[in-house]
Formats: sequence, structure tokens, C-alpha cells
Amino acid sequence: MSIFTRANSKIMTRPILEVNLQRLLHNYKFLCDIIKPATPSAVVKDNAYGLDAAVIAKTLYEGAECYDFWVAHAVEAEKIAPFVPGAHIYVLQGIGEDSLPLFEQYRLIPVISSPEMLSFWKKHKIKDIRPVIQIETGLNRLGFRENDLKKLSAADLKIFGMVMSHLACADEKDHFMNQHQLETFNRLRQKYFAGLPASLSASDGAFLGEEFCCNMVRLGAAMYGINTAPYRLNQMENIITVKAPVLQVTDLPKGEFVGYSATYRAGTDRKIAIVSIGYGDGLPRSLSNVGKVFFKQKGKMVEARIIGRVSMDNVICDVSDVAELKVGDWGYFIFDDYTLDDVARDAGTISYELLSRIGKNPRFRKDYML
Amino acid sequence: MSIFTRANSKIMTRPILEVNLQRLLHNYKFLCDIIKPATPSAVVKDNAYGLDAAVIAKTLYEGAECYDFWVAHAVEAEKIAPFVPGAHIYVLQGIGEDSLPLFEQYRLIPVISSPEMLSFWKKHKIKDIRPVIQIETGLNRLGFRENDLKKLSAADLKIFGMVMSHLACADEKDHFMNQHQLETFNRLRQKYFAGLPASLSASDGAFLGEEFCCNMVRLGAAMYGINTAPYRLNQMENIITVKAPVLQVTDLPKGEFVGYSATYRAGTDRKIAIVSIGYGDGLPRSLSNVGKVFFKQKGKMVEARIIGRVSMDNVICDVSDVAELKVGDWGYFIFDDYTLDDVARDAGTISYELLSRIGKNPRFRKDYML
Repeated sequence: MSIFTRANSKIMTRPILEVNLQRLLHNYKFLCDIIKPATPSAVVKDNAYGLDAAVIAKTLYEGAECYDFWVAHAVEAEKIAPFVPGAHIYVLQGIGEDSLPLFEQYRLIPVISSPEMLSFWKKHKIKDIRPVIQIETGLNRLGFRENDLKKLSAADLKIFGMVMSHLACADEKDHFMNQHQLETFNRLRQKYFAGLPASLSASDGAFLGEEFCCNMVRLGAAMYGINTAPYRLNQMENIITVKAPVLQVTDLPKGEFVGYSATYRAGTDRKIAIVSIGYGDGLPRSLSNVGKVFFKQKGKMVEARIIGRVSMDNVICDVSDVAELKVGDWGYFIFDDYTLDDVARDAGTISYELLSRIGKNPRFRKDYML
Repeated sequence: MSIFTRANSKIMTRPILEVNLQRLLHNYKFLCDIIKPATPSAVVKDNAYGLDAAVIAKTLYEGAECYDFWVAHAVEAEKIAPFVPGAHIYVLQGIGEDSLPLFEQYRLIPVISSPEMLSFWKKHKIKDIRPVIQIETGLNRLGFRENDLKKLSAADLKIFGMVMSHLACADEKDHFMNQHQLETFNRLRQKYFAGLPASLSASDGAFLGEEFCCNMVRLGAAMYGINTAPYRLNQMENIITVKAPVLQVTDLPKGEFVGYSATYRAGTDRKIAIVSIGYGDGLPRSLSNVGKVFFKQKGKMVEARIIGRVSMDNVICDVSDVAELKVGDWGYFIFDDYTLDDVARDAGTISYELLSRIGKNPRFRKDYML
């Protein structure tokens, strides 16, 4: 036996993303209760925020009777359509020359947000599909303004099957914009789309009260565990764990530098671990010298700090306080007690962007638990 | 004809990443000249920084006689192996239980960076494969320290086919660390690996002079157009263009807010465009209210600003100065005159992280030009 072999050391190299689908279902059902009597629907755009839209949509369809899904692009709808037969799939970025065949093939429902796109739809419309119209109420992003609505003919107004808008500040309960957008939305839908089903809120709006829920709520970020109502404690369960194997444990003598551009210098003798995850895996480089990582020691998590720059494939951690760390142990970067929200705050961004980055590299192994 | 149809408006929804493979080859060959007589090799880890490792490796193999490739993980090697028959593929994160079968199947060459991994290799070694040993010279990331080297037997030292290390501060020509690492590297290789081929530098080290090039240089970032020697003007050609279609052009009256959390308010009447790209596509959210976008007008690029928060699927741009913009026109986010380096600077990060994010969302259409 080599002098270097240590007991129980198992050499691993790939980072792992664990997704707890039971908790996803729990969160979704919790939100369904909150928004009653509105109809729930699931936002699985951006490949379900990187978690794999096919798996997420199938889970919600089979496990929670979800039959309405929102994606951003038709190419995203294509990935989920085979797993949710008969469900409605709404495409938020709408329809264009580069996506028309997919709309026809999968009978997707476009969200139409501009007069130009409406013209396109009228030329290429698909039989028995009633698109959604998006109207602008204060976000000043996509949607018909009232000036545009005024120009629509009575026949144009009858094309649609739903009217939607989107809130700008729903994560702040008392932001003046919420009430302003709600009033604008209600005024415009009554004036132009009386009787048509309506959708105003995403996850964050779901917590603002029944009047914000209208007929359908688009549940996304909260379902994935993000606190979309940060004015109160998160009621969602964390659904993801991100961990990566320790490749090396070594001493760092006092005075030595760490990482690119030598941004960390050891003030005393330290012990460091090199862990196999980096910004190439979606761990933000802005966690350099500020991020945390946790290691299991006798069943308890011990906290350590990222030191030096996060590089593309590795991070270096100060593990001086982690007594028994060895190669092949796991560093935890996101888990129940250091959630997406915590990491995003430490990285200077929002959980939505963080989650969207984490799942994208195919070298990340994904484990689903149901 | 509808009152809404404008001349030449073509409705599109997907962002596009164009990769100029001619320029990739140009950059690679330019670097090959600089590092002579060292052997060039190509770094295609992280899926070739998101550009598609299979395409990039095949291009370099067929167009520039590149026969040595570096990836981070064995699962990345698997993607390129079929396109580069007979080439050497080095795996920087090394070998472990989770990658051993791929090493055997594709005859990959592990970079061994710790005594524990060496033990693993000795148990599972693959016939006629000589691994690379990584030694630590100042980055304090992966690699054998001298204390570890001292414990290796004469037989252990003969296992390896190459010795490598990695520079921490090579983007700063006169950083004391460069000379320190070079001296440490040369001392250790002469003491423990006399006569063995050696590799110290990546793209940034290539510009530091012949003594830094040793036998093999690992060309990555510079090949992709990034200025890895920012103390002088970039000699690389930009190889990527990122553009996304305008979904809507509309007025923004004075006093109105834009985007999530209403972080932008119009001081005068403005004109805005909503463009179909967001942080879900890898455009950093840190470009909110500071990023730039360009629109072609009569053959010239006109500059506009991102206003409000970058959202997952869209950005909102102030196009008051863009006279003839219409739906279906393209907004340019990265191109020859506003390069990866420019965008990364405006986003508060480095080009490496930006490029690594950009190519990852499969909803991005990728066009390769050769």
C-alpha cells in the first residue's frame, strides 16, 4: 500500500447538482393553495432555470396535475412537449419566422406583445390556437400600450384566449408600483378584453393577495425554492444541493499567495483545499474571497471560506478549521442551510441569475430525487 | 395589409452567436508563431469556453494540425475524441472513480495533481499512457508541492510523460510572481524530472518570452480573441458576434419607470427597444443600466444603452438616438468594435467568465463561419 493512501479516500472529479423533485412538488402545491381559486401554471423557461425543463415539466404534470406551462422560446417548448401531452404551452417571447414550424408542429400558444407580431400571427395563424396578448402596465418591457390597443379592430380583439401582464416590483409588498399596475391592468382588460381570462402575477405576485392572482398565476422562482417575497421568511423548501469533490488538501505557509492575480495572502499558516468547481460550472466569480463552502464533519456542517479568485474549474478554500478533511470529501456550495438566496446575496446578484447559471454546464452531473 | 405592418420588418425571436472559425485559426497560428519552437496545444475545456468543443477541436485539428488538446473533465474529452483521431487529450482535473471508464475508452491522459490521485492511477493505470504531473509553483491551486515530490520513489518519477505548472499573474508583464514561478518550475523539473517535456504557460504566458514557453504552451483564451496581455493592444482578432432581435420599439414617456424594481426613470421622453436576450442567455445582469448595445443604421453602428435591469429573457434599450429602428432589426451585444473584453469590463468581470456564460444556453442559435 502506498504511503499516500489514506483511509476511505475516494477520488472523484465532477461536481454534482442534486434536485429534490419531492420538494419541487411540495412547493408547487403550497403555492397552488395560496393562489386559490386561480389556476396554477408552471414557468419552465431557460430550461427550467437550468434544472432540465423536461424533467421538471414531467414531474409537475404527472405529480401535480399541472397542464399549463410557460417557456420563453419555442425551442424550449420542443423539449417539454413530448412529456406533457395535451398540456398548454405558452411561449413568452412570442412567434417569429425562426420559430413558426415549431409552433405548428407542437401547437404552441404564442404570447403576442406587439402590433408587428400580431400582424405576423394574422398571416400565419394556426387553426384553433388562441394566443395570449401581453399588455404593458408599468414594467415598460414587452406588451401593447393603450395607444396600440386603441388601434385594434373588434375582430383583432377577439383573436385572443388570455390577457396577461407582468409586475415590476412584486418582491416589495408595499411598492407603489404594485397597486398602480393592478389598477392599470384591470382598467385595460375591462375596457378591451372583458370576460377574457387574465394573468398578471408570477411567483412574487402570488403573495400580494387574491386580487393580484386573477385567473392564472405563473409559478416559477418560488417553486424552485427562491424567496420571492423577501419581506417575510421563506416558506419554500430548498430543492437543490450543489456539491463538488475535494481534489487536494495541502498546507499554505504564512506569506504565500493564492489564485490568479495573487489576491489572497496568508497572514498565518493555513490549510487549504482545492475543490473541483468553478465559474465554468456557474459558480459566480464574484464569490472570490467572499464565498462560503461547507464540509461535513461527524454529521455536522463546518463552514469554510473561498480564498483567492474563483477560477474556471476550481476554487480554493481555507479549511484550517475543518479538522479531518481528505481528498474525495465533498464541498457543499448550495444546500438547505446555505441556499440559493444566501449564495446570490454573497455573490452580489439575485437567486434567479445564480440558478440560471448553475445547471447549464453539461459536465455537471445531475441527480434527481423523487 | 394591416396598419401595423412596416416595410422590411421580419419578426425573429432567438438570439444568435456567430463564431468565425477563420479568425480562430488565424489567432491560433499567430500564437503558434509567437511561441516557436515550443509545441502548441489547444485548451477546449468548458465546452471550448461555451463555443462547442467538438467544432473548435475539429477546426484546429483539420485546419491547423493541432494534435494536443486540454479539457477539464473526461466527459468533455468524450465530446471531442471522435473528431480528433490519434490526438492527445489531456484532462486537467485528473482521473477518478467517476471518470475511469472514459479514460480507458478514449485513452485519455490524466493530469495528476496530488499524491492521492497518483495512488489511484497506480491502481488503475492504463497501458502505455504516461500521465502529466502538475507541480505547484506559486498559484497554490492544484499540484504537487516539493514536500510531496520528495516522497516519490524513483519508479514513481518515471511514470510521467510531461511536467506542468500554471502561472498566477501572467497577464501582468512585470509581476514579481512570473519570475518566481519560472525559477521554481525550472528548479523542480531539473531536480525531479530532468529531460521530461515541460509545459508552464497558457495564452497569457505565451507573451512573456521564450523561457516561459518551455516545450508546450496551452493556448486558450487568446485563441478565442481575449486580450490575455492587457499591457499591450490586443493582437488577436475577435471571433464572436452576439446579436438578438428587436421584439418591440415603443415610446417611453417622461417620468415612467423601466424594468424590475423600477431602477430607471425617464427624465425626458425617450424611445425604447425590447431586445430578445437576457441573463438566461449569459448576458450578465450586472450590465443593468450600464451595458451597451449597438444597432446598424445605413451600414454604421449606432450606440445605445441598456436601461433598467437586465431580465432573464429580455433587455430594454434606450434607442432615442437610433433613428430608423424597427421590429426584427438586430441589436449587437458583442462584435468587432465592442468585444468580449469591452463587455466584461462594463459588466465588472473578466472576458473568460463572460465567454464561458454566453454559449451555454441551447436556445442560443450558433452559426459557424469558415
